[in-house]
Amino acid sequence: MAGKTKILVVNGPNLNMLGMREPETYGALTLDAIEAKCRAQCDRHGFEMSWMQSNSEAVLIDTIQKGCGQYDWIIVNGAGLTHTSVALRDALALFPGQVVEVHLSNIHARETFRHTSLITAIAKGAIIGFGAASYIAAITAIAETQEEA
Amino acid sequence: MAGKTKILVVNGPNLNMLGMREPETYGALTLDAIEAKCRAQCDRHGFEMSWMQSNSEAVLIDTIQKGCGQYDWIIVNGAGLTHTSVALRDALALFPGQVVEVHLSNIHARETFRHTSLITAIAKGAIIGFGAASYIAAITAIAETQEEA
Amino acid sequence: MAGKTKILVVNGPNLNMLGMREPETYGALTLDAIEAKCRAQCDRHGFEMSWMQSNSEAVLIDTIQKGCGQYDWIIVNGAGLTHTSVALRDALALFPGQVVEVHLSNIHARETFRHTSLITAIAKGAIIGFGAASYIAAITAIAETQEEA
Amino acid sequence: MAGKTKILVVNGPNLNMLGMREPETYGALTLDAIEAKCRAQCDRHGFEMSWMQSNSEAVLIDTIQKGCGQYDWIIVNGAGLTHTSVALRDALALFPGQVVEVHLSNIHARETFRHTSLITAIAKGAIIGFGAASYIAAITAIAETQEEA
Amino acid sequence: MAGKTKILVVNGPNLNMLGMREPETYGALTLDAIEAKCRAQCDRHGFEMSWMQSNSEAVLIDTIQKGCGQYDWIIVNGAGLTHTSVALRDALALFPGQVVEVHLSNIHARETFRHTSLITAIAKGAIIGFGAASYIAAITAIAETQEEA
Amino acid sequence: MAGKTKILVVNGPNLNMLGMREPETYGALTLDAIEAKCRAQCDRHGFEMSWMQSNSEAVLIDTIQKGCGQYDWIIVNGAGLTHTSVALRDALALFPGQVVEVHLSNIHARETFRHTSLITAIAKGAIIGFGAASYIAAITAIAETQEEA
Amino acid sequence: MAGKTKILVVNGPNLNMLGMREPETYGALTLDAIEAKCRAQCDRHGFEMSWMQSNSEAVLIDTIQKGCGQYDWIIVNGAGLTHTSVALRDALALFPGQVVEVHLSNIHARETFRHTSLITAIAKGAIIGFGAASYIAAITAIAETQEEA
Amino acid sequence: MAGKTKILVVNGPNLNMLGMREPETYGALTLDAIEAKCRAQCDRHGFEMSWMQSNSEAVLIDTIQKGCGQYDWIIVNGAGLTHTSVALRDALALFPGQVVEVHLSNIHARETFRHTSLITAIAKGAIIGFGAASYIAAITAIAETQEEA
Amino acid sequence: MAGKTKILVVNGPNLNMLGMREPETYGALTLDAIEAKCRAQCDRHGFEMSWMQSNSEAVLIDTIQKGCGQYDWIIVNGAGLTHTSVALRDALALFPGQVVEVHLSNIHARETFRHTSLITAIAKGAIIGFGAASYIAAITAIAETQEEA
Amino acid sequence: MAGKTKILVVNGPNLNMLGMREPETYGALTLDAIEAKCRAQCDRHGFEMSWMQSNSEAVLIDTIQKGCGQYDWIIVNGAGLTHTSVALRDALALFPGQVVEVHLSNIHARETFRHTSLITAIAKGAIIGFGAASYIAAITAIAETQEEA
Amino acid sequence: MAGKTKILVVNGPNLNMLGMREPETYGALTLDAIEAKCRAQCDRHGFEMSWMQSNSEAVLIDTIQKGCGQYDWIIVNGAGLTHTSVALRDALALFPGQVVEVHLSNIHARETFRHTSLITAIAKGAIIGFGAASYIAAITAIAETQEEA
Amino acid sequence: MAGKTKILVVNGPNLNMLGMREPETYGALTLDAIEAKCRAQCDRHGFEMSWMQSNSEAVLIDTIQKGCGQYDWIIVNGAGLTHTSVALRDALALFPGQVVEVHLSNIHARETFRHTSLITAIAKGAIIGFGAASYIAAITAIAETQEEA
Repeated sequence: MAGKTKILVVNGPNLNMLGMREPETYGALTLDAIEAKCRAQCDRHGFEMSWMQSNSEAVLIDTIQKGCGQYDWIIVNGAGLTHTSVALRDALALFPGQVVEVHLSNIHARETFRHTSLITAIAKGAIIGFGAASYIAAITAIAETQEEA
Repeated sequence: MAGKTKILVVNGPNLNMLGMREPETYGALTLDAIEAKCRAQCDRHGFEMSWMQSNSEAVLIDTIQKGCGQYDWIIVNGAGLTHTSVALRDALALFPGQVVEVHLSNIHARETFRHTSLITAIAKGAIIGFGAASYIAAITAIAETQEEA
Repeated sequence: MAGKTKILVVNGPNLNMLGMREPETYGALTLDAIEAKCRAQCDRHGFEMSWMQSNSEAVLIDTIQKGCGQYDWIIVNGAGLTHTSVALRDALALFPGQVVEVHLSNIHARETFRHTSLITAIAKGAIIGFGAASYIAAITAIAETQEEA
Repeated sequence: MAGKTKILVVNGPNLNMLGMREPETYGALTLDAIEAKCRAQCDRHGFEMSWMQSNSEAVLIDTIQKGCGQYDWIIVNGAGLTHTSVALRDALALFPGQVVEVHLSNIHARETFRHTSLITAIAKGAIIGFGAASYIAAITAIAETQEEA
Repeated sequence: MAGKTKILVVNGPNLNMLGMREPETYGALTLDAIEAKCRAQCDRHGFEMSWMQSNSEAVLIDTIQKGCGQYDWIIVNGAGLTHTSVALRDALALFPGQVVEVHLSNIHARETFRHTSLITAIAKGAIIGFGAASYIAAITAIAETQEEA
Repeated sequence: MAGKTKILVVNGPNLNMLGMREPETYGALTLDAIEAKCRAQCDRHGFEMSWMQSNSEAVLIDTIQKGCGQYDWIIVNGAGLTHTSVALRDALALFPGQVVEVHLSNIHARETFRHTSLITAIAKGAIIGFGAASYIAAITAIAETQEEA
Repeated sequence: MAGKTKILVVNGPNLNMLGMREPETYGALTLDAIEAKCRAQCDRHGFEMSWMQSNSEAVLIDTIQKGCGQYDWIIVNGAGLTHTSVALRDALALFPGQVVEVHLSNIHARETFRHTSLITAIAKGAIIGFGAASYIAAITAIAETQEEA
Repeated sequence: MAGKTKILVVNGPNLNMLGMREPETYGALTLDAIEAKCRAQCDRHGFEMSWMQSNSEAVLIDTIQKGCGQYDWIIVNGAGLTHTSVALRDALALFPGQVVEVHLSNIHARETFRHTSLITAIAKGAIIGFGAASYIAAITAIAETQEEA
Repeated sequence: MAGKTKILVVNGPNLNMLGMREPETYGALTLDAIEAKCRAQCDRHGFEMSWMQSNSEAVLIDTIQKGCGQYDWIIVNGAGLTHTSVALRDALALFPGQVVEVHLSNIHARETFRHTSLITAIAKGAIIGFGAASYIAAITAIAETQEEA
Repeated sequence: MAGKTKILVVNGPNLNMLGMREPETYGALTLDAIEAKCRAQCDRHGFEMSWMQSNSEAVLIDTIQKGCGQYDWIIVNGAGLTHTSVALRDALALFPGQVVEVHLSNIHARETFRHTSLITAIAKGAIIGFGAASYIAAITAIAETQEEA
Repeated sequence: MAGKTKILVVNGPNLNMLGMREPETYGALTLDAIEAKCRAQCDRHGFEMSWMQSNSEAVLIDTIQKGCGQYDWIIVNGAGLTHTSVALRDALALFPGQVVEVHLSNIHARETFRHTSLITAIAKGAIIGFGAASYIAAITAIAETQEEA
Repeated sequence: MAGKTKILVVNGPNLNMLGMREPETYGALTLDAIEAKCRAQCDRHGFEMSWMQSNSEAVLIDTIQKGCGQYDWIIVNGAGLTHTSVALRDALALFPGQVVEVHLSNIHARETFRHTSLITAIAKGAIIGFGAASYIAAITAIAETQEEA
């Protein structure tokens, strides 16, 4: 994996609906718009980025498994699966690179069942609550972390 | 508060010891080094930054109260007070600007009593686990959030 | 969506096995038989009904997402996903019409982990325990609710 | 008990205030109006219906005891006693016919102490959240259940 | 209160239905039959006995209050109120004599919410699970306790 | 309701026994003596006061319902029902005026089951622990609150 | 086992110290004195009684196992093992006769860890709090229960 | 301490911000205005009053310690420390006079972590939810309590 | 289903990664190697074995449903779904043959959320912690169980 | 310990009663019959086996301690001590070989207090629910594990 | 008990294995070595010391019972029984002298089930975590306590 | 740090009040008297001792931070902060020497919130309940521990 840092961005269930419903919770941007912003930010840092979304836990796990050895980092927004999927956590734990967890909304200011994440404990770190800026800050955090290492 | 965006960075108990002990948990950088990195990043975005650290809950609260109307954002690393101080939370809730919570270590991968934060629910968002990069990513998140607004 | 009231009925995992196993818990009717009864009841009220079943959380979510703007009501029997799927709940919460939760068996008289539903809090209402009659009563409740509005 | 199906409808504390206060929670109909709707619906199915309301747990229990052998079904809206009265539950459990639990509001979308019902586990089924339509759907469910048997 | 020992037996909600329903749980004897057995047993010990039953918490409390100074002992079967009524407990706690709690069925072998009694902690003792024999054993226990004192 | 401020004082189960038992917990004053003190204090503020006590939850609820539109404030000492009666809470929540909760003893220094009140969350405020002075302070609080408004 | 009813009385750890320490909790009688009272009471009912005490869980279990088929009833005071020994419970559950649980003190008015008994759910019934009279009442309860059967 | 009753009023963190932020929660009065009202009320009763506020737990404790033997009563609004500070509780427990707890807002109608007070159990009583009137009612309660004694 | 005993082995999410990652937890064998060992063991006992793995809950459920009537036993390693999937449990509960649960690692010596299995209660038995030998022991257990029956 | 693999089988309280009581839970085989089956299976693998049973926690611990250095494996059925004995766990943790936990019945399908084992976390693995076959499968698992090592 | 202070040291299960296994947890000293150090320390203070160890709860209890009136102090290391034995606690509570609890390891830094001791609440005090020095410090504490008295 | 062993003794809030209040809980000695006893004991062992007390969490933390590298051991009595201050715990965890926790009273025999210590898990050991003798025993434990090392 010499050369450019490679990042896989994994988006969970219902994130394809972004910008269409409940903008007061999730913001007005579509997922495509967030992808474009992330791509621009990755370009700025010289990172390669792959982007995917699925409503299927199995497709998310398959993608992460295939990403082993192909990517240096995974940025994951598990959406509703964040709180319930041990299988998704296990797939991320098998990933030999590092994981960054992101959330658009501040999950700790919402329903109690959203306060617990199965992913955080096996991630490098987490960024929550800034809308699309959570993703951008994740890319910044990756760049900074690599610089310090 | 026309003109430059103003940010107050508030650091809680024991963070003055950074770089001296337990580098495997908190990283090898001193707090001064982190401050320097933050100042550089703020310059890049054209932000004004004030920086403080105290082991005293009362001094932290006094500083936040005085910052009302003087700053647009507070970046706060409450350290051990994150999990126990309703008084610190109340001071931050009184702040008319927005609050960003940061942590050097991944608090969800440590002792159970560090999994709960009294601050998150009243913050805009939170960034945890990236060492000094948590602060830098917080500044990025502020810049991005302002851009989107 | 002028004209006839349109209802989507969504059936979760293992409901395709109805009538074949455990009739003392779930009744002797097959899912096809329940569909036929529902269709007749909808005809009586002048409602249009679509019917689907899947063992896949992702297919259920996809169907609900596509139903946004196409249906006025969703009747959902989440089966085992009722108690565990935040992703299914989030999909239903995004639906701009109203949601009615149904269960064949009295879930509060079974194992403890079936006493909690992630769906109820975002539904208009819930009907549990009447076997196939739960679905019929749901259609009645929709008719009555529309009449009162 | 040959001949017509006989239904006793039992309404608990404060339901006599319906339509006078908090219409956003309980709807705009008075209890008399709901009784009239239920009577019309029972006529449609050829059912005999008795109706009562009391703020007294003892009167509710006395009525249920006297109803043993007189009625085939009890429709019960326990109101606040739903969550606290083992004595009411015991009375209903002694009833040799079947019990249907109804609620006007979606109790699972309200305070936590309303999420638990002492009645559901000994009822045939429950219908919650549809306002007056909860009662009508209960009558439908009884009719359907009898048909299937 | 010189002279004969005076005992008030207080029976809570639904106990008037004894012998009519669920004999496998509560035994085949009616409450009248149990009263007769108790009266015979009291005669044997030279005790005076008063007997009452009510479905009303308020009537039970009124009776206990009036019994203050009139009786040496209260034998109480709180039935469903055992687990929920702080008011009944408070009335019994105000009684200057001693309290014996009885139950027909073994409440610790039934639903979890019956495992806790609000009365036991303020009683002299408790006797559970022997059907009508619980009452007889209570009278024996009173006789023995007085003898030892 | 022009003219004098009207206050209804509602006293729950066993409070009619005050001054007769357990003076170390509840004080030496009878309920009549407390009523007299309250009446004097109301006279001082020019308030009209109605006073009632009952051991019956139903009578308390009936009284509160009839008080809707007749009184500006209810002062309620729910006694044992404070901790268990959702029905009493619902009646008070329907009251269009404001509610003040009082307790003679410091319920937080007694048994654990007395630490939770179902009433406080729907009251304006609560006063506990001062014996009869709790009632007097409640009247003061009403007077002060009205003055500030 | 034709002929006389045979009862085995099993006493757990520390009960051999009765009458020597903490009489305010356990009473002033020695275990020998209680045995004598029980023997007299058994004689009155025509019962045969065996009596044993041990500080050893294993000896208690061995005795109960050997008692299978030899006795009709076991009266057991498990003392401290009541709350902790699944092995003792299992031995009692294997006993083909019936079990009566007794306690000298009111365990529900003592430390929280004494409020739970592993034995009650597999016993016919339990008698607690009457000191030596708990044993006598147990013998009465056995006599009454046999009479009713 | 012959002569006038002496009262120390202790105000915890962030109360110096009163009237400046969140008036819907804490009211529109400044802390100075509340002090003035209290002073007037104390004058009316012939009490001497000392007043202090600090954001520092240590300063609050020092003040309370120095007040031992100097004051008859402490009125304390612990603010955020109410729920978290065992040290503050211990200082108040050492005070040889009596303690009255006050709160401006109804803490039981706010976040769950505000429902528990470490102070109440060692106080004479508590007054919550009346805004500035909580303090005035506390002074009334002190006057009444002294009168009754 | 006369003739040979037929066994379906069902493997859940991420088990296709065996032998590639975290060998200290899951062992060094690939899933193919384990399958080969199982096939040899089944041959030894004269059993027919089908083998499948999927990352998809839906595919696992579909396979189990199709297996009804085709197999005598299911050996299931639910992996991460073990702890979260009521739907998988329901599918296994519908299976008319018997279920054996296996795990490679000792789930009780890992994170707390792995200590609970939704499958065990509806299985014949469970074998955990022996790596590939868990599967072999499961086949032995089936052979022994059939022999004893 | 060159030469043959040596296995100690340790059986806890009440297992000496096997085959005599509750065959629906524990099977119809006596402990002697199970020992014979195990001995035959050990012979097949060339293992030496020692067998013991005791109702005494102390005897079990003494045996395990003496087995240190004498055996390669311990197969333990802790019976009722499984859920309660830290001392037994500590003895097994001191054993320098490996531990296999077995249970005849499926403890997760029985009472809640049997769902937790103090032994599992320090064992190599566990086998539950297959009756005598649990022991045989344990011997198989030992053979397989040794082969793989 | 005039003359020398007499101390009984009671050591629970598995402590006879000290120095042989897990020295990183329990230290390298054998129990004999610790006894020798204690004896020397007692000699220094002029105390008489008796020493015992047993794996049997019953033997420990018997020894403590016989020690009543023979010893002034008991130093007890309950080992695994510390967390589970109410019977041992009851025996120590009957002891008319004073009890000191000791532990070699820091039980609060180990598994959760070791954080709770049934003994501490009835002991004078406890000393944990210093290895053999815990015993020596206990003897010092006894000497100091006697001096102060 | 060659030469003499250096010990810092840190005393938390309200300990300056020792000997003045609640002697039944904390003993009759003043803090100065305890210091004198400790100094004498340190002299006996040839230790250097520094002593401090503060009501301020911040001052305690500052002192501990400055003590890093200056002292070999810290003896800490956190008083009320023991149960609540993560910040104090973090400061002690940063200390490169070893920590001994002491308490005057037996915190496990007091209120429930005093049963948990945030300090114990990061300390070498703890000594509780002996009054001033807890400090003396701590010094002994240090001496013994050093001797053994």
